[in-house]
Amino acid sequence: MDMTNILILTVGTRVKIVEYFKALPHVKVVCTDASLNAPALYFGDVHYQMPRFTDPTYLDRVLEICEAEDIDGILPIIDTTAFMLSQNQQRFSQKNIKIITSPPEAVALSYDKRKLARFCHDNQLPTIPTFESLSDFKCAREAGQIDFPVFVKPAIGSGSVDNYKVSDMTELEAVLVDKTNMIIQAFVDGPEFGIDAYCDLETGELVDLFVKEKLLMRGGETDKARSVDQEPILSILRDLVRRANLRGPIDVEFFYDHGQWLISEINTRFGGGYPFAQACGKNYPQLIVNNLNGERNQVQNFEYPLNMILMKYPEVVVSSMDSNVLLQSKVG
Amino acid sequence: MDMTNILILTVGTRVKIVEYFKALPHVKVVCTDASLNAPALYFGDVHYQMPRFTDPTYLDRVLEICEAEDIDGILPIIDTTAFMLSQNQQRFSQKNIKIITSPPEAVALSYDKRKLARFCHDNQLPTIPTFESLSDFKCAREAGQIDFPVFVKPAIGSGSVDNYKVSDMTELEAVLVDKTNMIIQAFVDGPEFGIDAYCDLETGELVDLFVKEKLLMRGGETDKARSVDQEPILSILRDLVRRANLRGPIDVEFFYDHGQWLISEINTRFGGGYPFAQACGKNYPQLIVNNLNGERNQVQNFEYPLNMILMKYPEVVVSSMDSNVLLQSKVG
Repeated sequence: MDMTNILILTVGTRVKIVEYFKALPHVKVVCTDASLNAPALYFGDVHYQMPRFTDPTYLDRVLEICEAEDIDGILPIIDTTAFMLSQNQQRFSQKNIKIITSPPEAVALSYDKRKLARFCHDNQLPTIPTFESLSDFKCAREAGQIDFPVFVKPAIGSGSVDNYKVSDMTELEAVLVDKTNMIIQAFVDGPEFGIDAYCDLETGELVDLFVKEKLLMRGGETDKARSVDQEPILSILRDLVRRANLRGPIDVEFFYDHGQWLISEINTRFGGGYPFAQACGKNYPQLIVNNLNGERNQVQNFEYPLNMILMKYPEVVVSSMDSNVLLQSKVG
Repeated sequence: MDMTNILILTVGTRVKIVEYFKALPHVKVVCTDASLNAPALYFGDVHYQMPRFTDPTYLDRVLEICEAEDIDGILPIIDTTAFMLSQNQQRFSQKNIKIITSPPEAVALSYDKRKLARFCHDNQLPTIPTFESLSDFKCAREAGQIDFPVFVKPAIGSGSVDNYKVSDMTELEAVLVDKTNMIIQAFVDGPEFGIDAYCDLETGELVDLFVKEKLLMRGGETDKARSVDQEPILSILRDLVRRANLRGPIDVEFFYDHGQWLISEINTRFGGGYPFAQACGKNYPQLIVNNLNGERNQVQNFEYPLNMILMKYPEVVVSSMDSNVLLQSKVG
């Protein structure tokens, strides 16, 4: 059987993702990172140190590696490279190399919360009420559509940097002084859910999903979660996938508030919590390899064990500075 | 051969520590935590859910488990339980159960930075210049012993919560308003080192050590480090171990500043970065088991490979909420 060769960019600490591909038969896994201290580099078959994605030669370098390693598909696992690749899809499709992410308009929804809010509004998808300016917020408040407390955060950005819970107008005006590109959102306090889903690269169909309730967050990452039923969220997710034309692995975040599922974030790449889905039996790397081999994926059965508790813990790996070869892993 | 039975308290996410003991022959590993969502619980032989250490019945419960599981030694791996156990050592020694940590006066150095500063001063050990009050700081500044910038932090506490870099007196006075139990320290900018060492429980001798330079910190934990030579730091560490009467596994943090090694923190328990030492060939769990079996440990050769790059990444584990049995781990 022919080999399927996948290039995973900016692998960082995403060791599990690399391992899942490596466990598939007839797959060569090529990894890159800007730093040789990225542990996941050493879990594939081949690794390359690359310039940062801001380097003007970055895409040329990616193409060089594709040529040298006979790459069939490129998987970006951080937002910035997902965006860059989706914008330059043609340079790769010419050479018959697939980009494993969504088209640029969809990737844009993942990094600009204003775009996501407008998109949801235009497509009648439920999301957190979002205002792009103080005057918009004031109008809505006078119309009785929203009130304090609200949440103020940068339109572009992730994690909880520069996020403020604000309880009155004086405080809101103070927080917004000297800041641009901030959004004002309704303060939502309900439980938070993360969906890891796969949208077929060929058909765009939602072919598999896994829903977890977040139990413990640390530094923007889910450390503990619980697997929950996908049924209540399926139709909204299907709508979203179709309307946003999402492709490949996605990670969609929802709040459940007053009986409503509200879309709070879309990531057009593997989410940091994907290993929980794989531990419960999902295998999106296999679906990706099927697509790279020209096969369409059938819709899966959407089943997985419920009420599983998913927990993260730190694993260590050691490499020699001189040889950059992995010497030890999972020393027990 | 007789079994050695060890009880590890509040295991949390310290899966690696549990695994290292589990890998030793003739050792039974009993784990406890207040939460059944603590992943390390499921890596030992037996686990118990316990009340929090603040519960008045906590020690009774520990003794009950010791009786039920015929425990030879108890390993605390967080500061609070280390302190509580060291203070109540007698209740356990009566029953021939060893507490694997330092005596209470030494454990106190690990949670109150004022005590550590006074201890180092009284014992001529190098540490970061530390002032317990604004007036002390002002006196020292007038005497030309210290100047801005300084670092202000709580005397008791870990991580970087409530830590401030302060550049002038106005700012310093503002930061200290309404706060008690804060210390003022010289701002040290040099590279930071962490030492994982083992002090024999019987003899108190420093029997092994491993020194790493910290390359990347995240949320108070070392995510990347490099193994470095122990020689320059050995004599200070030996002095510290002897004068503070340290016992069992310790984690000592140093800054290297202007040609000086400065003690910045002592933890009288396994540090979060200990798995790096084990990955480089150390095996303190074996030294602990030797001590529990009544053997004294000889001083080891202090050797390990230098310039190894040590990297952390997230591993996942899944347990069923209903049965609390580990179902899957390291799904690859």
